[in-house]
Amino acid sequence: MVAEILSVGTELLLGNIVDTNAAFLSQELAGLGVSVYRETTVGDNHGRLFSALQNAFESADMVIISGGLGPTQDDITKEVAAEYFGRRLVLHEESLERIKMRFATRGRELPTNTNRNAIIPENALVLPNDNGSAPGVVIEQDGKILILLPGPPHEMILMFTNYVKPFLQQKSGKIFVSRTLKIIGIGESQVESLLMDLITAQTNPTIAPYAKVWDCHVRLTASAQSAAEAEKLIAPLAAEIHKRLDPHIYSVDDLTLPELVIALLHKQNRTLAVAESCTGGLIMSELVSVAGCSSVFLEGLCTYSNAAKIARLGVPAALIEKYGAVSAEVAAAMAEGIAKTAGTAIGISTTGIAGPDGGTAEKPVGLVYAGLYVNGKTETVKFNITGSRNEVRLRAANLALDMLRRNLQV
Amino acid sequence: MVAEILSVGTELLLGNIVDTNAAFLSQELAGLGVSVYRETTVGDNHGRLFSALQNAFESADMVIISGGLGPTQDDITKEVAAEYFGRRLVLHEESLERIKMRFATRGRELPTNTNRNAIIPENALVLPNDNGSAPGVVIEQDGKILILLPGPPHEMILMFTNYVKPFLQQKSGKIFVSRTLKIIGIGESQVESLLMDLITAQTNPTIAPYAKVWDCHVRLTASAQSAAEAEKLIAPLAAEIHKRLDPHIYSVDDLTLPELVIALLHKQNRTLAVAESCTGGLIMSELVSVAGCSSVFLEGLCTYSNAAKIARLGVPAALIEKYGAVSAEVAAAMAEGIAKTAGTAIGISTTGIAGPDGGTAEKPVGLVYAGLYVNGKTETVKFNITGSRNEVRLRAANLALDMLRRNLQV
Repeated sequence: MVAEILSVGTELLLGNIVDTNAAFLSQELAGLGVSVYRETTVGDNHGRLFSALQNAFESADMVIISGGLGPTQDDITKEVAAEYFGRRLVLHEESLERIKMRFATRGRELPTNTNRNAIIPENALVLPNDNGSAPGVVIEQDGKILILLPGPPHEMILMFTNYVKPFLQQKSGKIFVSRTLKIIGIGESQVESLLMDLITAQTNPTIAPYAKVWDCHVRLTASAQSAAEAEKLIAPLAAEIHKRLDPHIYSVDDLTLPELVIALLHKQNRTLAVAESCTGGLIMSELVSVAGCSSVFLEGLCTYSNAAKIARLGVPAALIEKYGAVSAEVAAAMAEGIAKTAGTAIGISTTGIAGPDGGTAEKPVGLVYAGLYVNGKTETVKFNITGSRNEVRLRAANLALDMLRRNLQV
Repeated sequence: MVAEILSVGTELLLGNIVDTNAAFLSQELAGLGVSVYRETTVGDNHGRLFSALQNAFESADMVIISGGLGPTQDDITKEVAAEYFGRRLVLHEESLERIKMRFATRGRELPTNTNRNAIIPENALVLPNDNGSAPGVVIEQDGKILILLPGPPHEMILMFTNYVKPFLQQKSGKIFVSRTLKIIGIGESQVESLLMDLITAQTNPTIAPYAKVWDCHVRLTASAQSAAEAEKLIAPLAAEIHKRLDPHIYSVDDLTLPELVIALLHKQNRTLAVAESCTGGLIMSELVSVAGCSSVFLEGLCTYSNAAKIARLGVPAALIEKYGAVSAEVAAAMAEGIAKTAGTAIGISTTGIAGPDGGTAEKPVGLVYAGLYVNGKTETVKFNITGSRNEVRLRAANLALDMLRRNLQV
């Protein structure tokens, strides 16, 4: 099947917001075996949206529109869709009730234009909006499929996941199963070259690498008559990739790196403290982003200055003088210092040169040491990281967290 | 003038990356008085790119393409452009020399396909790439303008700023001047309603609000025969907006909030320490993102647990018991505690309920107190913040920084 994606909204054409919906939908459709050859963005303009829709159906079997489903006069997607297929717009009572209920449970007054929100092209399939008011719409006619989704990403993503994905899976008569391997410590190009023969030979499952700022995802997608069969297709390929990339694969599917670290600490009933220099707050911030972290992550110190390293962590001034603040020795002393002073089982630390200034031939920008204190012993790792100041910091923070993850998983 | 934006790259259609170029270009073009009615994304496919280009010029005077200028067989944008305008592709010696120089100064070997990078449609205007290899191209023919830019954002943005923007300004015979007012503490809809009469009446200058996660930008753009004249048009409007929105306007044009805070501390020769509870590392992380922060930002503590608040900051246990950890009293004690223990002139703190759990009727999710200790006195502010756990944390961190900014600017 060939699909085209239409994004609707004058705010997109003014650059007020970045269109993340198109990327989400593209990625999901690729995972469902649907090809996307074109994406188009138009404003809240009847004539131009109508032309774009005509244009799209000249080459696509399916068109997915996001945006323009709201209750204001600007929101014209349903009118254009109804006109295109020659259908009337009718009030969908069930949706109206849902919206009324939604406002009532929130104790908010119903807007006067609510009826417009519940009007849909007749004989269409209505998709509930579990995160907002505007329902989604599916129209099938003359071998064409048109799917209308709301513009706000948190509404659109939930609606796609809960209703559109199952609908498309049923259409295709196949079950699609995906598994995402999350990789840290080697770049996307290295991942690709390590998996090149598999990527070249891919049919079912497919293999799609996605580069992120500090990690890289490889998504495997298999289609089959049943989930069990699809899983069976994925298993040997996943095992082969694990064989090639372990221990760089830090997680499969759900958990983020800080979630995984917090879960491991909970499970092992161990406590953690953090001392950060160049990453200055990023590791703590990632840990605190996980709800329920407080019973295992006891405290964090940003000791960006040498004085703080000495006073707060007990790093000997002589050590800093001898090896420099950016050294394996200081990273180790920081990790031990924070664990002992905070009374935790484990301490981790970072010290490095984030740039843009401060680098030397011997200690260039991007040089970062991470320290780990656990079971009375310290270990350190040295990284040479590329990128801007904040890319270096973000990559260093996650490489340090990954050092801990590897230790906890042994 | 009416423009259309084309983004080229199969990786966009697979959702591997989000297209931020289109938003950047839209925003810049709006600021230059150029209307954009459609944006289209196609893959690295000759036929489909050619159709998209034909399609675009049916309604647009100018087409800007980003992507597909590289040296590999996938990069077909220059071929398609040459074919569309019936021009030959020729080797551009100057570009070839630039690329050779670029590789030589980096000590890297010249790729074998370098010549392809320096080939351009004949009689075109060539735009130097100051951040990469592939040059940009401008072709003017039959009243149409086609501009080809590289896909990587850091190359594209610099090329647009350095060469395309002046070119378009010259075309229009006008000078465009923009001023961006950065606003914190009130939402975009409130900003819009406070400025509604000005927005409705806008002609020259134009007024464009942009909603961000924790702040809101209002961009004023004036066009005139000279920069001085444009400035003169902006001045009274900016003054009127300042009158309505001060003290919520934290910065004009360049500086980010942490950059401004660090600059003010440098200027006033004062030192800062930070104690974070619910924001856990975010304030420190923003401060450390500013190069050169270490002489004024001495240290940060993430005291997420009550034990750490007591042991590290000297917050009396009785105070926490009486008022709860999330209280104005504890926020004040934290700010004073961190300043005294770190020996800094100023201390700031946060304590709050980021959610999703932990809220009560009396202390709901989103309740955050920020504390400030300065000149021997403490003050606190209470915020009720909406959003997800991390939105609450991000907004709280920046509201706390802004509390300090306001104090420093008095």
